[in-house]
Amino acid sequence: MKRWTADQYIEGVLAGDRQSVSRAITLAESTLATDQAIARTVIQALSVAVHNRHSEGQEPGLPSQTHPKGLRVGLTGVPGVGKSTFIEVLGLQLAQAGQQVAVLAVDPSSQIGKGSLLGDKTRMEELSRSPNVFIRPSPTSGSLGGVTAHTREAILICEAAGFDVILVETVGVGQSEVAVRGLCDVFMLLMLPGAGDELQGMKRGIMEMADLLVITKAEANNKVAARLAQVGYQNALHLFPPPGSGQSVPVLLSSALDPDTIAEVWQAVLHWQTEAIRTGWWDKQRQHQQLQAFRQQLEARILDQFYSEHLAQVAQAEAQIRAGADVSTALGLVLPKSTYLSH
Amino acid sequence: MKRWTADQYIEGVLAGDRQSVSRAITLAESTLATDQAIARTVIQALSVAVHNRHSEGQEPGLPSQTHPKGLRVGLTGVPGVGKSTFIEVLGLQLAQAGQQVAVLAVDPSSQIGKGSLLGDKTRMEELSRSPNVFIRPSPTSGSLGGVTAHTREAILICEAAGFDVILVETVGVGQSEVAVRGLCDVFMLLMLPGAGDELQGMKRGIMEMADLLVITKAEANNKVAARLAQVGYQNALHLFPPPGSGQSVPVLLSSALDPDTIAEVWQAVLHWQTEAIRTGWWDKQRQHQQLQAFRQQLEARILDQFYSEHLAQVAQAEAQIRAGADVSTALGLVLPKSTYLSH
Repeated sequence: MKRWTADQYIEGVLAGDRQSVSRAITLAESTLATDQAIARTVIQALSVAVHNRHSEGQEPGLPSQTHPKGLRVGLTGVPGVGKSTFIEVLGLQLAQAGQQVAVLAVDPSSQIGKGSLLGDKTRMEELSRSPNVFIRPSPTSGSLGGVTAHTREAILICEAAGFDVILVETVGVGQSEVAVRGLCDVFMLLMLPGAGDELQGMKRGIMEMADLLVITKAEANNKVAARLAQVGYQNALHLFPPPGSGQSVPVLLSSALDPDTIAEVWQAVLHWQTEAIRTGWWDKQRQHQQLQAFRQQLEARILDQFYSEHLAQVAQAEAQIRAGADVSTALGLVLPKSTYLSH
Repeated sequence: MKRWTADQYIEGVLAGDRQSVSRAITLAESTLATDQAIARTVIQALSVAVHNRHSEGQEPGLPSQTHPKGLRVGLTGVPGVGKSTFIEVLGLQLAQAGQQVAVLAVDPSSQIGKGSLLGDKTRMEELSRSPNVFIRPSPTSGSLGGVTAHTREAILICEAAGFDVILVETVGVGQSEVAVRGLCDVFMLLMLPGAGDELQGMKRGIMEMADLLVITKAEANNKVAARLAQVGYQNALHLFPPPGSGQSVPVLLSSALDPDTIAEVWQAVLHWQTEAIRTGWWDKQRQHQQLQAFRQQLEARILDQFYSEHLAQVAQAEAQIRAGADVSTALGLVLPKSTYLSH
C-alpha cells in the first residue's frame, strides 16, 4: 500500500471517505516513529477542523439549542448480553433513517491471554454491508492508556469524517468502561434479565456510570423475568448517588426480535441528549473531557520525550534491578543525572 | 500528635512497632509536601533494608530454596462472597501459629460515589484484637495509580516491620485487581457456589489472574452446589491459557464454619509458594514487579517535577480549553515553551 502524506489523510477524512477513515485510524494506532509523526499532524488538523465546525455550528444566541453532530454513545455489557445484536438492529435503523453510523469496538482484553473477548468479527454482518455504516474492530493489544488514546483518536477521526452517531462498544470487564465513559456523551449498560444478581458488586461501579440501563432479550419466556429485573434495577438505582447529569436513569426493556423496543431505546437516548443540552450538562461534560484529554496527551508526550532522551540510563537502571539492586537505588541512577529532576 | 523525624519512622518500623507501622503508612499516604519529603526518605531506607535482608537471607548455593519472609497474598471476590470472614478465620489460624499477619484493604471504589464498598470496619473484630495482627483499612480516595503506589508502600512498610504474611484484600470490581495482582506473590479469587454464571464474562479477566480459586460457603445446603461449581470452574480453567507460574490452578472448597477447610487453602498457598520457588517463578515474578515499580515511580516523579515547574503554563492552557480552545492548541501553549519538549 502506497504511503500517504498527511494532507491526503486529512483531505480524505474531511471528505468523509471511508477508506481514508480506516487508514487514518490504522495510522494513529501505528507504533512506527514515521507514522506517529504524520499521525500527530493529521490528528491536530482534524482536531482543529472539528472544533471550528462545532464553533461555527453554534448560533450566537442559542449555543446550547442545536444538536451537535457526532453523538458519542458508549455501550457496554457482559459477553452474552447481546451487544452485537443490539448494535446491529440499532445501526440498521439509524442507517435506514439516513444517519451515518460508526461502530468502534474497544477491548483491552485480558492482561494475560491477549485474546479478544469480542470474538470473531463475522458478527454484524448485515450492518457491515450498509453504505452508511463504518465498523472498526478493537485495537488488538496495548495498555489501557494506549487503547484509550487510540479510541479517542478514532472517535475524532469519525467525527471529522462527518458521522452522525459514533457507537463505542466495550466488553463489560470493568477496566475499559471507565475509559470509554470518559470519551462518550452518553453511556448505556446492557443487562440480562433474571441474572439474579441485580445488586451484584461487580456491576455496581459500571451501573453508577450509566445514563441508561437496557435489559436485553425481553421476549417470550423471558418477559416476566425482564419486568422483574426492570423493577429490581429501578429500585437499586435509588441507592446510588444521582448522576452528574441530574437526569434520572431510565431502565428500558429491549428485544432484537421486536425492533420497536430498540427504536424506543434510541428515543430515550435522544431525549437524554436534549435534556443534557438544555441543562448545560452536555457542554460541561465535553469541556471536562477536553481537559482530561489535554492532561493525558500532555503526560504521554512528556514521558515519550523523557524516555527518548534517557534510553541508556533507563536501560542501565533496569539492568541493575535485574542484577539485584532495589528500586530506590535504580531510581537514583536515572533521576539525578536528569537535569530537570535535580532539586 | 508530635511530628516524627524520618529516623524515628525508620527505627520504629524496623523494630516492628505497630504504631510506627501505622504512622508510616499514614505518612506515605499524606499529600502534604513536608510529609512527602520525609516519606520519600523513609520509603527509600526501608526499601534498602528489606532488600539487604533478602540478600543476606539467601544461602550462596541455595538462593531459591529458602522461604523468604513477607509472603504477599492478594485476595479478591465480589461483595458478599465472604472475604472478611475468610480473612478473619485464616488470620486467627496464622496468628495462633505464631505468624505475624498484616491485612491491607484496597478499594479505589466507585469513581463517582467515593463510598467504600468494603463497608464499615467493625468487621474482623476478633482478628483485630490479636497482638500478632495488624489491620489497615483502605486509603479512602485517590486515583487507581495513587492507590497502587500507596498499597505498594504499605506492603513495603509491613515487610520492613517483619510481618510474615501480608494479606491484601480488594473488592472484586475489576479496576483494582490488576493493580493488586501486580503487587502480590500469589493471588486468590473467592467465589460463591451456585452463582450460576461460572463463565460469566466479568469474572473472566480476574479468573485468569488467579493462582487459586476458593469456593466459599461450601456448607450445609450449599454443599452440592459448591461441588458442582468446583467442577464447573475446573472445566472452565482448561479454556484459559496456563498461568505464567506453570502451576495448575486448584479449585478449593471452604467454609468458615469448618476451619479445617481454610487451613487446607493455606496449605495449598504454601505448596504453591514452594513450587514457585523451586521452578524459579518466584524470583522471576518479583523481578518483574520490581521493574514495574521502577517504571511507575520514575514516571510519577517525572510528571510531578514537570507540573511543579510548569504550573502557570498548564493553568493557562486549561483556561484556554475552558474558553473554547481545542486540545491541540492548548498543548501547543505548554509544550514548545518547555525546554525539554522542543524537537
